[in-house]
Amino acid sequence: MPHAPTAALERRHDAVRSALASRSLDALIVTSLSNIAYLTNFAGSSAVAVVTLDHLYFITDFRYVTAVTDERSGAAACPGLDLVVVDSTYDAALLGVLTRETGRVGFEAAHLTVSRHGWLAASLGTAAARELVPTEGLIERLRVVKDGYELATMREAGRRISGVARELLADVSAGRTELEVALAIDARIRRAGFSRTAFETIVASGPNAALPHARPGERRLAEGDLVVLDFGGVYDSYCVDLTRTVSIGPASPRARDLHAAVLEAQTRAIRAVAPAASRFAIDAAARDLLTVRGFGEAFGHGTGHGLGLEVHEDPRLTRRRAEVDASDEALRPGMVFTIEPGVYLPGWGGIRIEDDVVVTEQGAELITDAGRELLEA
Amino acid sequence: MPHAPTAALERRHDAVRSALASRSLDALIVTSLSNIAYLTNFAGSSAVAVVTLDHLYFITDFRYVTAVTDERSGAAACPGLDLVVVDSTYDAALLGVLTRETGRVGFEAAHLTVSRHGWLAASLGTAAARELVPTEGLIERLRVVKDGYELATMREAGRRISGVARELLADVSAGRTELEVALAIDARIRRAGFSRTAFETIVASGPNAALPHARPGERRLAEGDLVVLDFGGVYDSYCVDLTRTVSIGPASPRARDLHAAVLEAQTRAIRAVAPAASRFAIDAAARDLLTVRGFGEAFGHGTGHGLGLEVHEDPRLTRRRAEVDASDEALRPGMVFTIEPGVYLPGWGGIRIEDDVVVTEQGAELITDAGRELLEA
Repeated sequence: MPHAPTAALERRHDAVRSALASRSLDALIVTSLSNIAYLTNFAGSSAVAVVTLDHLYFITDFRYVTAVTDERSGAAACPGLDLVVVDSTYDAALLGVLTRETGRVGFEAAHLTVSRHGWLAASLGTAAARELVPTEGLIERLRVVKDGYELATMREAGRRISGVARELLADVSAGRTELEVALAIDARIRRAGFSRTAFETIVASGPNAALPHARPGERRLAEGDLVVLDFGGVYDSYCVDLTRTVSIGPASPRARDLHAAVLEAQTRAIRAVAPAASRFAIDAAARDLLTVRGFGEAFGHGTGHGLGLEVHEDPRLTRRRAEVDASDEALRPGMVFTIEPGVYLPGWGGIRIEDDVVVTEQGAELITDAGRELLEA
Repeated sequence: MPHAPTAALERRHDAVRSALASRSLDALIVTSLSNIAYLTNFAGSSAVAVVTLDHLYFITDFRYVTAVTDERSGAAACPGLDLVVVDSTYDAALLGVLTRETGRVGFEAAHLTVSRHGWLAASLGTAAARELVPTEGLIERLRVVKDGYELATMREAGRRISGVARELLADVSAGRTELEVALAIDARIRRAGFSRTAFETIVASGPNAALPHARPGERRLAEGDLVVLDFGGVYDSYCVDLTRTVSIGPASPRARDLHAAVLEAQTRAIRAVAPAASRFAIDAAARDLLTVRGFGEAFGHGTGHGLGLEVHEDPRLTRRRAEVDASDEALRPGMVFTIEPGVYLPGWGGIRIEDDVVVTEQGAELITDAGRELLEA
């Protein structure tokens, strides 16, 4: 469960209601679990919320009723929460709530399937006093700038994941399998106070390091390997994410050159962070450096992604693609994202370095702080 | 990655094409990752497939291209796979594939959001030679009965998770926190050969055991507690799931009575499993016993859920709800599901016992086999 204080939740509710009003909406059906967590501190796996101008209906089932009831007092209680317990199905409970309201009812088009929408529309009927209106990213746009509670939580999470990174060499050594190393890192992440890993830990060694999303397997680390270690944790519902590359034994001159190029690319991207900078400019800062060094083609993914209640959220630091990225959203203080350039050479291996930053008025504040040199195990 | 043999994938493709033909569809857009894994053995986190009567287009991005290319030969290669690499966005790549095809194009209404559908429909245009047609559960209906490869995989997974269950008393003891116990179980699951846990391991002690989906926390296990331990693993992409309840110190007479009732309910449900039996009848077998013993109200969830590429899939063994469960699907040989009755008494605690079964011509075959007695730590 996140523990955002009641006053913070209240501000978030107010912001959602302002967004509703500006779109002439009377209510919003919230089906994204991350958005629900943002509004209510609920971190279970099943719920639907309906925000109206004066209500916050919270629909959940038997499994979570005791937990929700227990959270109704205290410093992190959700203000104005109107608990609705599912009797038969979530859809039926949602329909029951909606029949109490009238007007224009927004839904999250990116988080409602065609099936559920079809059922809901048919059930509300055509002559209804309610109209279903698609919305896009209404709450996500609020989440992209973190509030004080969120920043404090993510700084603490960054401090803790950096501690895990500083202990990497205790787990990485020749002869161990990728999976054994991944298990050891996962145990450290949990011991560091994270409730879970933010994604399946990547331990990609030797040629596997050329696959940015390799799964750890039975391959044993061997002298001369580069090993990409990418791991993250969820702390009080917030995600952080960090990557280091380790050489098994002394690094080759080629490995040193590549690592220096990636580190330089990361440094340039970090320096490019500033309020009002374009998210594409951060990507370009890293990509241009790697392109000049001849590794532009070997850097096949974006430079970074937002962090928060989800491990991949806005802003996306990518190349600008003319056909889909019409809007050039500027960075704003309070945004949190990764900066993680890499080079991947099929058959040879790969290198990635990833840290997490907060945008401040002064530029990038690193919230991860483990050494970024090429480690040798 | 699952490793279903090429011949099994071919049979699955044939079955999908038959289903398409019977609905007068020329193609199906597959956006459910589990359904994609079922058709192709792909286990990454991003892909879209399009099955036509003579093609299987497989759309993925940079991160997975090397892995997919490596899998193109060998005993588990996907037959007829036509790889399409995402250049700008998945949606654009999908549109590119669809413009090569004409006719009635099905999509998975339960796995396509209103946003993506809207974009696709607008992009294909109104005067198009293609019509988008919603489908429901087309591939899920095939997945509900497991083939030989799947049953062999799940039996092996069941054997391995049972091994973890037999070691529980090594990890559960007075003074340890729920989280410490959960960590220890997670490490055993990984050491037992699972690629990951199937869900966040539940260690619910004392009053927390009254919450069926409690998250493990800092509470220390204490003499007199009942502890519900619910955990699962993903083995070669297939999920198994098991629950045992442990008493810290000698169990009270009340705990013994409740445990005996839950075990009897589970035994009755297992005995009720037979080809052609109703899924509701299995639930009723457990529920009726608990109701007679006075715990009907304390058993607030369904008796079980299907297992496979997802940890919760069809069939659902629940109470029949007249308004939504019109069809009374009969069990068929090859179905795999959990049987997990429980009782939950707020303020006191809870008990659950869960095992996994395969439906055979002879009835239920248990694929988990750790002792089901009330354990004492």
